[in-house]
Amino acid sequence: MTADETFAADLESLQFENQRLHSLLDVTQTLSSVIDLDTLLFKIMDVVKINLRADRCTVFLLDKERNELWSKVAMGVKSEIRFPANKGIAGFVATSGEVLNIPDAYADYRFNPDIDKKTGYKTENMLTMPMRDKQNEVIGVFQVLNRKDGPFTLADEELLGAISSIAASAIENAILYQEIRKSFVSFIETLSTTLDARDYITSGHSRRVTLYAVQIARLMRLDPAEINRIRYAALLHDIGKIGVPEIVLFKNKKLSDEEYEIIKRHASLSKSILSKIHFQKGLRDVPAIASAHHEKIDGSGYPDGLKGDEIPLGGKILAVCDVFDALTSRRQYRDRMEIEKVVGILEKESGTAFEPFVVYQFKQIRLNVLVEILEFGHNADLSKIDLELLKKYTLKDIVEVRKNGAKSNEDAVMEETFMRYYLRTYRRD
Amino acid sequence: MTADETFAADLESLQFENQRLHSLLDVTQTLSSVIDLDTLLFKIMDVVKINLRADRCTVFLLDKERNELWSKVAMGVKSEIRFPANKGIAGFVATSGEVLNIPDAYADYRFNPDIDKKTGYKTENMLTMPMRDKQNEVIGVFQVLNRKDGPFTLADEELLGAISSIAASAIENAILYQEIRKSFVSFIETLSTTLDARDYITSGHSRRVTLYAVQIARLMRLDPAEINRIRYAALLHDIGKIGVPEIVLFKNKKLSDEEYEIIKRHASLSKSILSKIHFQKGLRDVPAIASAHHEKIDGSGYPDGLKGDEIPLGGKILAVCDVFDALTSRRQYRDRMEIEKVVGILEKESGTAFEPFVVYQFKQIRLNVLVEILEFGHNADLSKIDLELLKKYTLKDIVEVRKNGAKSNEDAVMEETFMRYYLRTYRRD
Repeated sequence: MTADETFAADLESLQFENQRLHSLLDVTQTLSSVIDLDTLLFKIMDVVKINLRADRCTVFLLDKERNELWSKVAMGVKSEIRFPANKGIAGFVATSGEVLNIPDAYADYRFNPDIDKKTGYKTENMLTMPMRDKQNEVIGVFQVLNRKDGPFTLADEELLGAISSIAASAIENAILYQEIRKSFVSFIETLSTTLDARDYITSGHSRRVTLYAVQIARLMRLDPAEINRIRYAALLHDIGKIGVPEIVLFKNKKLSDEEYEIIKRHASLSKSILSKIHFQKGLRDVPAIASAHHEKIDGSGYPDGLKGDEIPLGGKILAVCDVFDALTSRRQYRDRMEIEKVVGILEKESGTAFEPFVVYQFKQIRLNVLVEILEFGHNADLSKIDLELLKKYTLKDIVEVRKNGAKSNEDAVMEETFMRYYLRTYRRD
Repeated sequence: MTADETFAADLESLQFENQRLHSLLDVTQTLSSVIDLDTLLFKIMDVVKINLRADRCTVFLLDKERNELWSKVAMGVKSEIRFPANKGIAGFVATSGEVLNIPDAYADYRFNPDIDKKTGYKTENMLTMPMRDKQNEVIGVFQVLNRKDGPFTLADEELLGAISSIAASAIENAILYQEIRKSFVSFIETLSTTLDARDYITSGHSRRVTLYAVQIARLMRLDPAEINRIRYAALLHDIGKIGVPEIVLFKNKKLSDEEYEIIKRHASLSKSILSKIHFQKGLRDVPAIASAHHEKIDGSGYPDGLKGDEIPLGGKILAVCDVFDALTSRRQYRDRMEIEKVVGILEKESGTAFEPFVVYQFKQIRLNVLVEILEFGHNADLSKIDLELLKKYTLKDIVEVRKNGAKSNEDAVMEETFMRYYLRTYRRD
């Protein structure tokens, strides 16, 4: 080789290396900015596909507790596949820790063509590589299919190796975040359910109020962050009842004025308890929303006697949902209040207690959704056919029919279907 | 330039670029693997110092809610400095978004030499640069001091810019993680405190049990993950009391057998409530530890009658701490039980109810720590001098003196000091 040739070769290899480093930095920038695990996994698959000029990439994660490999798959709704951690080529790679670079899938005895047969896809070449964490333990597997310009090269293996270690860090962080997020949410849900369950009357109350409130928030097209605040506030709105003596809280008979004042304390107690919790950024308003569920827009509510727009929107939504759930709950010795009477009460107090627009939106709730919430906890035996039918009507429609009678056969079927669930009873658990 | 010279120049610039990219990738690998914010900030400062061949680097983060810049500083104990977001050069950069590259600090009117005067450090040159998030908003400031080979270059600015965007992503993730972690912990603490506060007798109980348990776990040199599990289990051990009717739970008079059976349910209720919560990986055992706080090593405890090593170590620790706190709590019409009597009970049941080694460790608790826990919530007026003195003695020592009398003047002073706190009373809140 002449000096010129050596120079040229050096230059070329440096240029190649340079390009590779640039790609890797891009990958890093892309991946390190994502903390949501699902989004991250899709990003990783994308990035690998592009950088290895391949047709497909799947990332399988190893679930050590269940000894399974799992992956997110994008199919309309994002969903998940799972299989035993030693099955197939991905399983072999996860278990042995070896890299498998298969230039011709159908010529390789390890390749199982069954999946291609099912999906209609034609696998030509594939690169399967373990993903390892900082402790060098296998935490998952990359499977890359059909490189565009012939089988995967050694350079591809190196590049995937480098991407893999970046991806592993990002995934570990995303999993930590997801785990603690799950903990937080499940803690709140469990607590809320447990507190309600102290008394038969309130059992399931906070969960149903949450479902109604989120429904209304969606109908009002509030942004996801606001819906999230409302969700937490709804789950926690009655947490102040921890501080109200049960002897008053669960009294079956009429309350004295003094007892009623004690009960009313729960709203301000909710606020003071929730104010002690460090809510993360987007959730700072949760205590204010939660504690406003007994405020009335004319200022006659409690705990603070807020008026009109002094009440946070979330609080106005909770107020309607709270009363609706209380009125439609089954009581120990009676059925639910007639639905038209319930809505009549909401309408009557619209403009004094309740924000009219919230009441308006509440009446737009689809009947299938309404039945699912009313029967929360007893949802297993709802008929799909009934729900399909009810989907065409709103709460407003059923109230109309109940008040003025069914004007058509369809209306009569709707009424009969709805009332069958509304009035059904089951043994107390 | 000859062709050879051009080649050589190209080669050199490619090599330089290559080196830079390698450094950046290293930086990324280092930063993306850290999710703990404090650790991350120190790593970032380190990495910048090394890559820019500088003597010092500080990262200031912008706290938008308080409009302040803050930074972690390593000084023995990790601590924090804060100042208004428009103060000094860092403040100027945070507010204007400009980069300030100052080759000679003392020749620059913007430089304030007061800090050097205070610290004795000599600032020569400095590079101050905003750190921006994905939305290009300033989230903090880098301040790099005293480049080793003369003032910072344009290449340094470029390199810091690249590091900055990597750091910003990592910091954003770490903050999200920290925020939700804080939420989770503060939620548990608030709930635990609130539940205890329902009754005067149990007020503060779970917090004190937690403090004792963590203390014992540390004396036993358990690993941090196990201590963490014990901390959560201690905070939540009585959560099952939510499900015990208050009329039984808070009864002042002697309980009937039936009522006692109802009270005993709280341990298994703790387990069933906690089992519904999704605890993250290292905390899966929290329900088992929490619900074992009434198990006895001879198998005569509840809810499961576990024997010896069937009881998790954390449960054995909780059992001792729970009883100790119950016996040393002030009751409505009496003072605390004599400390020697309390320890006598622990010793008597050591080997039947309690794990002897846990009782042994409990007696090793320093008296300053013991007083701080006994007086939790009334800590503000503990005298530092008293605590210094008590630090030299253990629970075992005071029991010895109480039983056999003080053998020296020092012992008598210790006894007097301890008893002054142990027996003091204050108005009920």
